[in-house]
Amino acid sequence: MKKIINQPEHVVNEMLQGLVFMHGNLVDRLDGYDVIVRKAEKRGKVGLISGGGSGHEPSHAGFVGKGMLSAAVCGAVFTSPTPDQILEAIKAADEGAGVFMVIKNYSGDIMNFEMAQELAEMEGIEVASVVVDDDIAVENSLYTQGRRGVAGTILVHKILGHAAETGKSLAEIKALADKIVPQIKTIGLALSGATVPEVGKPGFVLEEDEFEYGVGIHGEPGYKKETLQPSKILAQELVSKLLQDFEPQANESYGVLINGLGATPLMEQYVFANDVAQLLADKQIKVAYHKIGNYMTSIDMAGLSLTFIKLADSSWLEALVAPVETPAW
Amino acid sequence: MKKIINQPEHVVNEMLQGLVFMHGNLVDRLDGYDVIVRKAEKRGKVGLISGGGSGHEPSHAGFVGKGMLSAAVCGAVFTSPTPDQILEAIKAADEGAGVFMVIKNYSGDIMNFEMAQELAEMEGIEVASVVVDDDIAVENSLYTQGRRGVAGTILVHKILGHAAETGKSLAEIKALADKIVPQIKTIGLALSGATVPEVGKPGFVLEEDEFEYGVGIHGEPGYKKETLQPSKILAQELVSKLLQDFEPQANESYGVLINGLGATPLMEQYVFANDVAQLLADKQIKVAYHKIGNYMTSIDMAGLSLTFIKLADSSWLEALVAPVETPAW
Repeated sequence: MKKIINQPEHVVNEMLQGLVFMHGNLVDRLDGYDVIVRKAEKRGKVGLISGGGSGHEPSHAGFVGKGMLSAAVCGAVFTSPTPDQILEAIKAADEGAGVFMVIKNYSGDIMNFEMAQELAEMEGIEVASVVVDDDIAVENSLYTQGRRGVAGTILVHKILGHAAETGKSLAEIKALADKIVPQIKTIGLALSGATVPEVGKPGFVLEEDEFEYGVGIHGEPGYKKETLQPSKILAQELVSKLLQDFEPQANESYGVLINGLGATPLMEQYVFANDVAQLLADKQIKVAYHKIGNYMTSIDMAGLSLTFIKLADSSWLEALVAPVETPAW
Repeated sequence: MKKIINQPEHVVNEMLQGLVFMHGNLVDRLDGYDVIVRKAEKRGKVGLISGGGSGHEPSHAGFVGKGMLSAAVCGAVFTSPTPDQILEAIKAADEGAGVFMVIKNYSGDIMNFEMAQELAEMEGIEVASVVVDDDIAVENSLYTQGRRGVAGTILVHKILGHAAETGKSLAEIKALADKIVPQIKTIGLALSGATVPEVGKPGFVLEEDEFEYGVGIHGEPGYKKETLQPSKILAQELVSKLLQDFEPQANESYGVLINGLGATPLMEQYVFANDVAQLLADKQIKVAYHKIGNYMTSIDMAGLSLTFIKLADSSWLEALVAPVETPAW
């Protein structure tokens, strides 16, 4: 294992300290917890939290700040955060108008976030949530009933963050969340596995000329291994799977998110973006929003994911482009 | 070679097309050239350009936009752009008040940018420039007389971009550039070599447990190979080299840039940041500005660089934090 770290068991703690050093103008760490909170003034609005296992940086702590998350809970690498940590995040996010939780669809995350919700409600904080299950690659998976929650989650943070910032109520945010999540779909591919520091070797190994479609962000198996193809072919497969799931109609408008999984240079992401652009132009699909970079990573995995969001309401686009003050949006 | 590309010889062209697809609200490609230009309105200000070989994405095209570069010239991978391309960038950047060029210190870049300057001056455009040589790792190198120009270059873009945006003259920008460049110093380390697509194999190979201090962003040799050490030790070496070169005095204020070289996850960059923070706190060095992420990469190289800027004038900090509209700042 070749990594710039100290003891593997201290990675999350040291990473959060480093994050607060680099972004101390925007975020704080909750004393004694693996929870990153925004510094922005509390003004009686709905608090928005998210979180999950670490290893997906900048998710989720990089999206804490004005206009997005109020707090992020950072579990051990690829491990759900515990209910006591989530409870502290809820309490820190609470401004008196309730707290909304964005949960990626993994059984451990759902169990622990729900347990924290119960504890918070016993303390008198109203809590609601949504489960993001945007990964169309496979139904059910390691750690998951149904589809996994992956990169599309950051679009949920952004749109709901805007709703919270503009004073929407907890019920309105819940209703909005239930509308947007089904309109966000993602599919990815991996050229290499990720190495969890405490494990010391990759979660899976691909041959020198092999890649895998549909791998999860914790290295969960995908649906097909093949000899490496040109970017055009990869784009064709991912775009056609997404469009199959969306069944686009005329006059619709979409957003595109290309997400690097950690070790994939922007050079490759942009080449892939060009192939996606051509395929969407061929199909006369209107793209009104674009985002590219490393947002929901899998530590040092090489590969990328492609997310489409159907912009069913023009206010969603306004929410996506609204300015925020976060470390990583 | 495992990369998400099509034909290696088309990488730069396709990447620029992808970049314009993803960031078409901010930038355009100059028709028929490998030049990315900003869309912002021209208002008679000094134009600011930069560029160099491709493979350092998001540098430099990602820094084109309001408040930073007017245009970026994108050479073949790790290859200086040709004078005719640079000339077109100068002409596109010209708003009538002259054009300033930020050149990284490589012999080929200097030769070609200077040749383009002569051609532009023959067409009546006033041109001035600065050469950035922030890499303190080695004196002279492959492709370089003196020190190499690396990640610190993006801080030059930002500070001069602000100067141009706020209406400073070409002479004022030249004077400012000559002041800031000596106050910016960088040193890096690599865990692996970068693979140029048209070459198909890494420019250098390190053993499974080996890394190298002072490697350049084109894989130029560094000054010491060692068995991999904990992040704390790496930080100690890089920080002490930088401070040796700065000789900090009381009451000074610094900015810190931690730059991933392409394949290094944010997890590692933040762990390293924490070690840097502790070393600077021990030495009571005041850090007033922080930036972290992949800004001046070496394709898919694993490793990072550390840049300090001595904020000798408070206006430099204002320039660094001023908002911009670019794909990647």
